[in-house]
Amino acid sequence: MEKFYQLFDGRAPVIYTPPSAISNKGRTDWKDLWLMARLVMKFGGTSVGSIERIRNVAAHVKREFDAGHEIAVVVSAMAGETDRLAGLAREAASIHDAREYDAIVSTGEQVSAGLVAIVLQDIGVPARSWTGWQAGVQTSSVHGAARITGMAIDKLVARFADAQVCVITGFQGLSEEGRTSTLGRGGSDTSAVAVAAAIGADCCDIYTDVDGIYTADPRIVPGARKLDKISYEEMLEMASQGAKVLQTRSVELAMVHRVRLRVRSTFAAPDAYPSDVPEFDLNIGTFVCDEDEIVESQVVSGIAYAKDEAKVTLVKVADKPGVAARIFVPLADAGINVDMIVQNISDDGQNTDMTFTVPTADLDRALATLKNARADIGYHDLTSSANIVKVSVIGVGMRSNAGVAAQMFQALASKGINILAITTSEIKVSVLIGAEYAELALRTLHTVYGLDED
Amino acid sequence: MEKFYQLFDGRAPVIYTPPSAISNKGRTDWKDLWLMARLVMKFGGTSVGSIERIRNVAAHVKREFDAGHEIAVVVSAMAGETDRLAGLAREAASIHDAREYDAIVSTGEQVSAGLVAIVLQDIGVPARSWTGWQAGVQTSSVHGAARITGMAIDKLVARFADAQVCVITGFQGLSEEGRTSTLGRGGSDTSAVAVAAAIGADCCDIYTDVDGIYTADPRIVPGARKLDKISYEEMLEMASQGAKVLQTRSVELAMVHRVRLRVRSTFAAPDAYPSDVPEFDLNIGTFVCDEDEIVESQVVSGIAYAKDEAKVTLVKVADKPGVAARIFVPLADAGINVDMIVQNISDDGQNTDMTFTVPTADLDRALATLKNARADIGYHDLTSSANIVKVSVIGVGMRSNAGVAAQMFQALASKGINILAITTSEIKVSVLIGAEYAELALRTLHTVYGLDED
Repeated sequence: MEKFYQLFDGRAPVIYTPPSAISNKGRTDWKDLWLMARLVMKFGGTSVGSIERIRNVAAHVKREFDAGHEIAVVVSAMAGETDRLAGLAREAASIHDAREYDAIVSTGEQVSAGLVAIVLQDIGVPARSWTGWQAGVQTSSVHGAARITGMAIDKLVARFADAQVCVITGFQGLSEEGRTSTLGRGGSDTSAVAVAAAIGADCCDIYTDVDGIYTADPRIVPGARKLDKISYEEMLEMASQGAKVLQTRSVELAMVHRVRLRVRSTFAAPDAYPSDVPEFDLNIGTFVCDEDEIVESQVVSGIAYAKDEAKVTLVKVADKPGVAARIFVPLADAGINVDMIVQNISDDGQNTDMTFTVPTADLDRALATLKNARADIGYHDLTSSANIVKVSVIGVGMRSNAGVAAQMFQALASKGINILAITTSEIKVSVLIGAEYAELALRTLHTVYGLDED
Repeated sequence: MEKFYQLFDGRAPVIYTPPSAISNKGRTDWKDLWLMARLVMKFGGTSVGSIERIRNVAAHVKREFDAGHEIAVVVSAMAGETDRLAGLAREAASIHDAREYDAIVSTGEQVSAGLVAIVLQDIGVPARSWTGWQAGVQTSSVHGAARITGMAIDKLVARFADAQVCVITGFQGLSEEGRTSTLGRGGSDTSAVAVAAAIGADCCDIYTDVDGIYTADPRIVPGARKLDKISYEEMLEMASQGAKVLQTRSVELAMVHRVRLRVRSTFAAPDAYPSDVPEFDLNIGTFVCDEDEIVESQVVSGIAYAKDEAKVTLVKVADKPGVAARIFVPLADAGINVDMIVQNISDDGQNTDMTFTVPTADLDRALATLKNARADIGYHDLTSSANIVKVSVIGVGMRSNAGVAAQMFQALASKGINILAITTSEIKVSVLIGAEYAELALRTLHTVYGLDED
């Protein structure tokens, strides 16, 4: 009977097994325990965008292989390839079978996994490529947005004993019906975390085009600092509030299965330093880990912003029970996610203005849905704007520090920035502001919360 | 227990089951027997070269589907795609693992199968794509040049009952080790025949950019006629003597399993005529079938030519026992196929000149091999020329008609064409001549054997 590791991608947390307990399994020698680690290395589309870049990927892998670690590599498709394949499917039929879409787009990772294996072999690292179905990655049958349900790991783990690097296609698995499924965009991060959880990896290194998670986007905030560590909860808020480095679902999965994640640079010279695994040098990249592992935490760890939301306002909606349902049920039925919601009493005191945000990509559909439902809702006017941004301050320290939100509102007011809407969570405050104020707001808040580089 | 159909791709023939006995299996209604057929439709890279062309493919399939037939479609990669993928593998490492090469290049057919399925669904034909491993195509483990060893057909055949078209990736299968394997270039023809044999198809239609098999290449011989039927044996000689329409192995496999093959045009308007299956209109394409099915056969059925051979001459080789072995064993060890061999006594009567042909692609390697073995062989000089062609006249009628070869030599002599070498088989005479005489020789022989159009 093959060993099957149940995964709970996006569902309720399960029994927590500490990574050390898993990674030590089967290792009897104290020296081995100390020197050898099990490692997942994930490389995105930009990292494998050309054969030249794949050689760089292979050099990173060789560094860890030469240090004696057991390595599973997870790769995305070469940059642009998934778009090209999705474009072919759309050209074939604008509305098409998600199962066939998956059969088509999943080939991108199969090509890059094969190429990485060839280049690794060429520099003397034993390697082979594994597709999702070969590697035993089981998923749900929601093609195009499947969730990983488990992984059969025996075949993979057997290769570690032969000192072979397993190069696994990210973004895909095998559905219950035996067809190739894909996890949706950015799914390779989730694949990497799933593999790490299943094989009990000591760390899951996400190689990307930035060298870690920053307190704010360094292109906008010159004083932004790289964080050495960030908690799962904070990373989750950062990812869902606009930081593009990690896919939200991958952070959720890492949190549930307590997979140690590290975000690090793919373009840093692979031979600039030796392997730091399993000691882990805090100067390299950013660790996403349990809150307990972070000794000195700031009140605010970072500031995120998201440009891809649009604001919709229904002017003069009758202020009576049930109206919110008449607005948001049709939108939910159309699969449109509504984020922030603000309701104001309008001038005449009998009607209300309802403002909310939707993803910019869904704005046209949202407007059409609301126009269709006009008779039912009964509003006076419908306005919208994509010219807004959402700015969020995030930090687990907020739990024990009052006044973070007040400080934010004050700082923005002092710069004359009008707040259009507000949402909060235990560890986050988000505000909606005009897009033209984005840079000013980010830089101001970065200074106010003491995040600027010394 | 799943049904497994053993295939003998390129091995000794096995028990012969007439196609009718297979195709009638499970059909109880006389009407069904008469009206419904099981059909394999194979489309090559040019036929699926763009979404536009895939729409044309789908129209061909819809015609047969609407006529009530059970259909398996076998597709190649989009034209140019296999070359692009093989180029990436070469760029990764000039010498690379054939298993990884297979993992990479096999994705081309997965994309085209998915696209064909999408377009079929779009025009109302229920369809799904099947990879080699999903369709149960088992192969040997000689990656890059695997042979099909059998096929598990239950899952496929179950779809026919649901009136679903199965779109299967050509060129690939699953090796004994559970990895994706490819059959080598042109392997999609072989895949189509294997599927046809396994599911007991009434016919395997090979859609290509010509409308059938001709008595000679119509671009060279203006009077060339399309053949209605050609025997397996003749087609085999035609294919191996230079006709590019069908891959040799696919014809062998069809002959062994008595699969009725038809070569027909992919670019003929799909709706120009209704389905002719299972009655089979002899005006459409060319049937490759059993000799017995051809009532009136010509002495000579066709004339083929091959440009891709080169001539090598070893001048003044010592005429003593064992010298041939010393020449041809090293070439065989280097994997070079030697075709025609001629040995002449040279002027001094003590030495001999040895002339033979090799594929042009292998010429450089052949010369290097012979130079290495010079001390062992002991020859005076080594010359070569790629400026030659092989012209072959082919026909099962030769078995019972003497004088075909003599007629050929006479006709060529009358035009002043010098013959450099000759080989014959039971149903074929091949001569090697200077490349500049190719057109003249083909047209002359076409007329001499009475093949010109009336």
